[in-house]
Amino acid sequence: MRPTIALLTDFGLDDPYVAQMKGAILSRHPDAVLVDLCHTNPAYDLARGALFLEASRKHFPQGAIFVGVIDPGVGSERRIVTLERDGQYFLAPDNGLLSLVLAVPGKVRAWDVTGHVQDPAISSTFHGRDVFAPLAASLGAGTLPSDLGPEIDPASLMRLPWAEPLVTEQPFQVKATILHVDRFGNCLTNLAATPWATRLTLGTELGMTLDSGQFLQVLRVNTYATLQGNRIGLILCSQGYLELSMNQASAATATALTPGESIIFSTKEDESR
Amino acid sequence: MRPTIALLTDFGLDDPYVAQMKGAILSRHPDAVLVDLCHTNPAYDLARGALFLEASRKHFPQGAIFVGVIDPGVGSERRIVTLERDGQYFLAPDNGLLSLVLAVPGKVRAWDVTGHVQDPAISSTFHGRDVFAPLAASLGAGTLPSDLGPEIDPASLMRLPWAEPLVTEQPFQVKATILHVDRFGNCLTNLAATPWATRLTLGTELGMTLDSGQFLQVLRVNTYATLQGNRIGLILCSQGYLELSMNQASAATATALTPGESIIFSTKEDESR
Amino acid sequence: MRPTIALLTDFGLDDPYVAQMKGAILSRHPDAVLVDLCHTNPAYDLARGALFLEASRKHFPQGAIFVGVIDPGVGSERRIVTLERDGQYFLAPDNGLLSLVLAVPGKVRAWDVTGHVQDPAISSTFHGRDVFAPLAASLGAGTLPSDLGPEIDPASLMRLPWAEPLVTEQPFQVKATILHVDRFGNCLTNLAATPWATRLTLGTELGMTLDSGQFLQVLRVNTYATLQGNRIGLILCSQGYLELSMNQASAATATALTPGESIIFSTKEDESR
Repeated sequence: MRPTIALLTDFGLDDPYVAQMKGAILSRHPDAVLVDLCHTNPAYDLARGALFLEASRKHFPQGAIFVGVIDPGVGSERRIVTLERDGQYFLAPDNGLLSLVLAVPGKVRAWDVTGHVQDPAISSTFHGRDVFAPLAASLGAGTLPSDLGPEIDPASLMRLPWAEPLVTEQPFQVKATILHVDRFGNCLTNLAATPWATRLTLGTELGMTLDSGQFLQVLRVNTYATLQGNRIGLILCSQGYLELSMNQASAATATALTPGESIIFSTKEDESR
Repeated sequence: MRPTIALLTDFGLDDPYVAQMKGAILSRHPDAVLVDLCHTNPAYDLARGALFLEASRKHFPQGAIFVGVIDPGVGSERRIVTLERDGQYFLAPDNGLLSLVLAVPGKVRAWDVTGHVQDPAISSTFHGRDVFAPLAASLGAGTLPSDLGPEIDPASLMRLPWAEPLVTEQPFQVKATILHVDRFGNCLTNLAATPWATRLTLGTELGMTLDSGQFLQVLRVNTYATLQGNRIGLILCSQGYLELSMNQASAATATALTPGESIIFSTKEDESR
Repeated sequence: MRPTIALLTDFGLDDPYVAQMKGAILSRHPDAVLVDLCHTNPAYDLARGALFLEASRKHFPQGAIFVGVIDPGVGSERRIVTLERDGQYFLAPDNGLLSLVLAVPGKVRAWDVTGHVQDPAISSTFHGRDVFAPLAASLGAGTLPSDLGPEIDPASLMRLPWAEPLVTEQPFQVKATILHVDRFGNCLTNLAATPWATRLTLGTELGMTLDSGQFLQVLRVNTYATLQGNRIGLILCSQGYLELSMNQASAATATALTPGESIIFSTKEDESR
């Protein structure tokens, strides 16, 4: 049994923290297959972690265990929870990190596993290594979550406030929020594969108004390579959301957009109504 | 069967892209041994990726599978190819990333595997996860490349323009190009272990003229520790090329050289001719 | 037999060096479980590497092999040594990198394994790949260190100069040194869980004088979340040392402390004596 255990933290790569978590898991389960989901998450940035967990889970094996340790409340009263959905497990502090995994419709079960690991050597500042790692190793070895703590109502878990797209008619407009800017300068919006997004045929021209008032044209396309010159495209990206992109250039630089900012899309047909 | 699968991308470490590729491979082949070759390759920099693949392959196990995803043309018409050489496999877009692996003399076979993965869920922007990962998992499971697509002539594969060293006589000079500057400030040149390089005995003094016209003395040595004070050394480095180095200091800083710049070496004996 | 091999280097993540070390290990021992301890150690910074090795080892499995390659003297006369302590192995140049693992009381054995790997293809600049990797693979496969080279006296191994805490009475003061600043701005001091540290009850107020003469109040607490507002806390951290911390803010930024600087703690009760 070689469970995949995926680690998401805000520990960075310059300290020995991630390695110590891995050592703690391997000490208990030498056959675990450890995958770094991301460790350079900005410190305490729960929203980005929540996005990465939700966007990634469907690409991992059945039985995979996701361990999310963005945990500013470490050592305080916050709960530690295990979630089960679609045959995978999630371990995280109950601080909103699982918000998006919880938001998607589907059957979810949850357990409060806060008190399971009892050891006087547990540090008060590094539960990733001293509590989450042993819990992950236990799940990986086949221990049932119900053996780690009492089942709880998933509705009791903390949710982050989350910007929902806002659609208005006459004039038809869609207000979206930037969730994330990636290394290439692609700007992920919170527009998932919604009816609005999918009805936009390839080649549609859209207007885009920034918070600053600036107005730009964007083109609904399918690939980066389609975009000529400095055109900004709107692409249904690999993470399940519409993103602003350019061809071998940074849409984030061109628009100066950053996570949390909002944009308003309008379609030409609707503008002329 | 636990194949080593080495991943080279320009995805960086701040996004979930590398992890999703790994999840996609492990979903299909849980026993794969995944190694990060490099992910912080500058976006779209095919030359550096080509160098890293060629310099690294001989240090990996027989049967290793190298997956190179620097792929600005993702989703466009560019081919995806599998290369076999010396008992190892290479998967990459046909965009020049395999230039150096192809340039070294030896038997190479190639297959066009573009159309093998057929799935309506393939994203148009992330073939690393949706196409390359399944292909790598198939090769790792023992599928023959000939089962993935038709064999093609390796001569049909795209090559990057590549600066070759230029040797002139009277006066004897060698014009070289900087291929890469590493973390320590070592400047790799495109001078491989050629007759000229190997005939330079240790301790030889060379003149080096930069593009700026600046003239510097460099010393042919074997180890960094040999270099005294601010001496710049010329060392046959671990990647198979002559490099400019200093002892616990950055030759790149001292010379202001960057990749793509050229330098002219001259030997004293030759200068006096 | 799947030994955990943990790698600590100053190679960074932008070059193919770490991957080539891994390839060299996997070529000889395909079942090795490779863990990145840290690779972004500042170039040639032996003290930080020494700290990370000592702080991490107890969290790794029995039989784990730690390979430390911060090696400015590569290719020179410096020895390569294997250390055994508490059922784990350490491979490193004899340049002080093992100072802290050696400093902790306990039984240690050492071997000089410098000459074991004999191969004309060994590069003079990259022993991590060409010498350390084969040695690690041998140890991982069950070869005894005594088969790799002669046993030597651990007292003969090089030690780094190391700042010890200085305690004075009347007035009672503890002079400490900053060992490391982590990603969160926590400042690790060289104060281990000493009698002085442990006698400080939670909630104790301490005075802290910086090199600059600035005087600050710090509070002995147990968790980051306890700290209100801009309070600086003194916490027995997960690495075994007292650290200066803030709640979701950087103590390093607030104090401008950097590694190597010293601070003087005084307790109120002692101030009033």
